[in-house]
Amino acid sequence: MDQNLQIVALAGGVGGAKLADGLARVLPSEQLKIIVNTGDDFEYCGLYICPDIDTMVYTLAGIANPTTGWGRADESWRVHEERIRLGSEAWFRLGDLDLAWHLERTRRKHSGESLEAITTWQTRAFGVKPGVLPMCNEPVQTKVITRGQKILDFQEYFVRLQCEPEVSGFVFHNAETAKPLLAAIEAIRAADLIVICPSNPWVSIGPILAIPGYKEALTGKTIAAVSPIVSGKTIKGPAAKMYQEMGITPSAEAVANTYHELISHFIIDTEDAACANRIKSRWGIMTVDTNTIMRSASDRETLARFVISFALGINR
Amino acid sequence: MDQNLQIVALAGGVGGAKLADGLARVLPSEQLKIIVNTGDDFEYCGLYICPDIDTMVYTLAGIANPTTGWGRADESWRVHEERIRLGSEAWFRLGDLDLAWHLERTRRKHSGESLEAITTWQTRAFGVKPGVLPMCNEPVQTKVITRGQKILDFQEYFVRLQCEPEVSGFVFHNAETAKPLLAAIEAIRAADLIVICPSNPWVSIGPILAIPGYKEALTGKTIAAVSPIVSGKTIKGPAAKMYQEMGITPSAEAVANTYHELISHFIIDTEDAACANRIKSRWGIMTVDTNTIMRSASDRETLARFVISFALGINR
Repeated sequence: MDQNLQIVALAGGVGGAKLADGLARVLPSEQLKIIVNTGDDFEYCGLYICPDIDTMVYTLAGIANPTTGWGRADESWRVHEERIRLGSEAWFRLGDLDLAWHLERTRRKHSGESLEAITTWQTRAFGVKPGVLPMCNEPVQTKVITRGQKILDFQEYFVRLQCEPEVSGFVFHNAETAKPLLAAIEAIRAADLIVICPSNPWVSIGPILAIPGYKEALTGKTIAAVSPIVSGKTIKGPAAKMYQEMGITPSAEAVANTYHELISHFIIDTEDAACANRIKSRWGIMTVDTNTIMRSASDRETLARFVISFALGINR
Repeated sequence: MDQNLQIVALAGGVGGAKLADGLARVLPSEQLKIIVNTGDDFEYCGLYICPDIDTMVYTLAGIANPTTGWGRADESWRVHEERIRLGSEAWFRLGDLDLAWHLERTRRKHSGESLEAITTWQTRAFGVKPGVLPMCNEPVQTKVITRGQKILDFQEYFVRLQCEPEVSGFVFHNAETAKPLLAAIEAIRAADLIVICPSNPWVSIGPILAIPGYKEALTGKTIAAVSPIVSGKTIKGPAAKMYQEMGITPSAEAVANTYHELISHFIIDTEDAACANRIKSRWGIMTVDTNTIMRSASDRETLARFVISFALGINR
C-alpha cells in the first residue's frame, strides 16, 4: 500500500475489530489509527471495564477468544467459578486473564491517568502496534430505551438481559459535553480514508458520532462503511434486531439510510448485491458488493484491501 | 462451657484469628462475637479489601493459608501471574480465590451495603457461624508515621515496604468521627468476658479502642488479654519491632503497660513467667503464664479454654 496513506477506522466490538485487524495486517502501523466506542464502558464490582477497547486490543494482539467473541483465548475461570460457588451476583463473567488487565486499568484510572494514556499503555503491554484511541476520555454511557420506556444500562441490556428487551431508542449520557480526543480529530483531518467498520450503527458507531466534533471533522472526507447487516441479519450482536424493533426492516439498505449523510462509499455483501444500485441512485453513495464475512485472518486482510482499493480507486 | 456465657473477642489478623478460632471451637456460636479491626482496610485497583476481616473469616472457615498467614489455602495465581506478565504494578498479591470475594464485597459496597451487612453475608457464604463484626462501618485508616515524619498508608508500610521503615507513631484517620457498631456495643454490654486476642496492640487493637464508645463500653468489664509478645519477639508481624522503635523494650510486660488501664486479666507465655508477679504488683492485673503459641487447632482450643477458665475462675 501507498506509504503515505493515512487511514482511520471507527469501530465497536467484534465485527469492527476484525476489519480493523485486517487493516492492521495490510498497513504499516503508523498509517492506521482506530477510534473505538467507549459508550459500553462500565464499572463492575469496582473495576473499570471497556469492552470494545479490550475486544479491539485482544483482536489486534491475536489473543481474542474466537468462540465467545469477547474476552481472551486460553482463558481460565478460577475466579468466576469461586464467585459462583460463593453465591455472588456474577452475570458479567470475568475471565482470569481478562481480570488481570481490568485490575491494572482500574488502578491507573484511580491514580488519575486518562483513558487515552491507559489505552496507549495497554496497546504496548499487549504488543499492539497501531494507535487505538478511545472516542473520548470522559465517561459516556450508552443507555437503551425499551418499549416500556425503561432505561437500561448497556451492559445490563446486552449481557445480563441478553438483548431480550425490545428497544425503542438510545441515549448517550454525557455525550454532548464529552470532547473528542485531539489525537482522534488530528488523525481524521490527516486521513485519506475513514473506514466505518461493520459495527453496530446504533450502539457502536452512534456514540462516537454523538460526541460534538466528530461529525464536523468527518465532513468532506472520503468515508467508506462496511455493512454489518448481511441478508437482513447480523453476524453477531443485536443490530438487525434493533432495526426491526425501531420499525425498520433490517438490511444493508437500512444501514445506508442510517449513514447516508456521512459516507461516500458503501461495501455490502454479495448476498445483498441486488440493492447496490438502489443505494447508489437514492443517495449517490458509491456502493459495491464483495464477501464481507470474515471467517479467517485472510478474509479480514482481503476485505481490508478491498475497502481501501474501492474507496481510494487504487487497483492492486 | 456454661450455656449462658457470652464472650466477645477483639482481634486483628493472624494471631488474633487463631485465638478467635480456638474460642469458636469451644463455644456455641451464639455465645461468641468477634470485633475485628478494619483500620487496615484499603482500596486497591478499585477493590475494597479488608485484610483482617478476611483473615478472620478464612481462619474460622478453616481455609486460611497456613504458610503465608494471609489469603486462602489451595490458592492459585493465574490473575497475579498475568498482572506481572503485563508489567502491572502488583505489589499487593491477589490470589484467584481471594479475588472472587474481593469482587463481591466491592460490588455490595458500591450498591450501598454497610460493611456490617456485607460481613454478615460473607460469614454465611463461607459457612462461619460466630458473629464477626467490623469495628465500624465508616472507613478508618491506620497510618504509620515514620522516623522521618513521613505518613504511610498501612498496607504501603506493611506489604509494599515489608515493615521496613522505622515507626515513631500511628494515626487512625477518621476514628474520632466513626461510630462503633451498635451490635458490637450490645455484645460488649452483654458479655461475661472480653478477650483481647494476641494481636498487635498498636495497629490491630489500637484502632478499635480509638473509636469513641468502645473504651466506655469496656469499662468495668472482665477483660483478659493474651500477650502477642513472647520472649521479646512476635510470632508474626511487626509488634515487637514497633515497641523497639518507639523506645520501649518489647516484652509481655510492655504489652501489660499498654493495656493496664483496660484489662483485669493477662495471659503471658511460660517463657515470660518471670514477669508475672511484676505485672501483678505494678498494675494489680491478674497475670498467669501458659503456652500461648498456637501451632495446631488443638493449641488454639487449649488456649481458648485456658483464657476463659482463668479469667472467669471456672475450673474445668
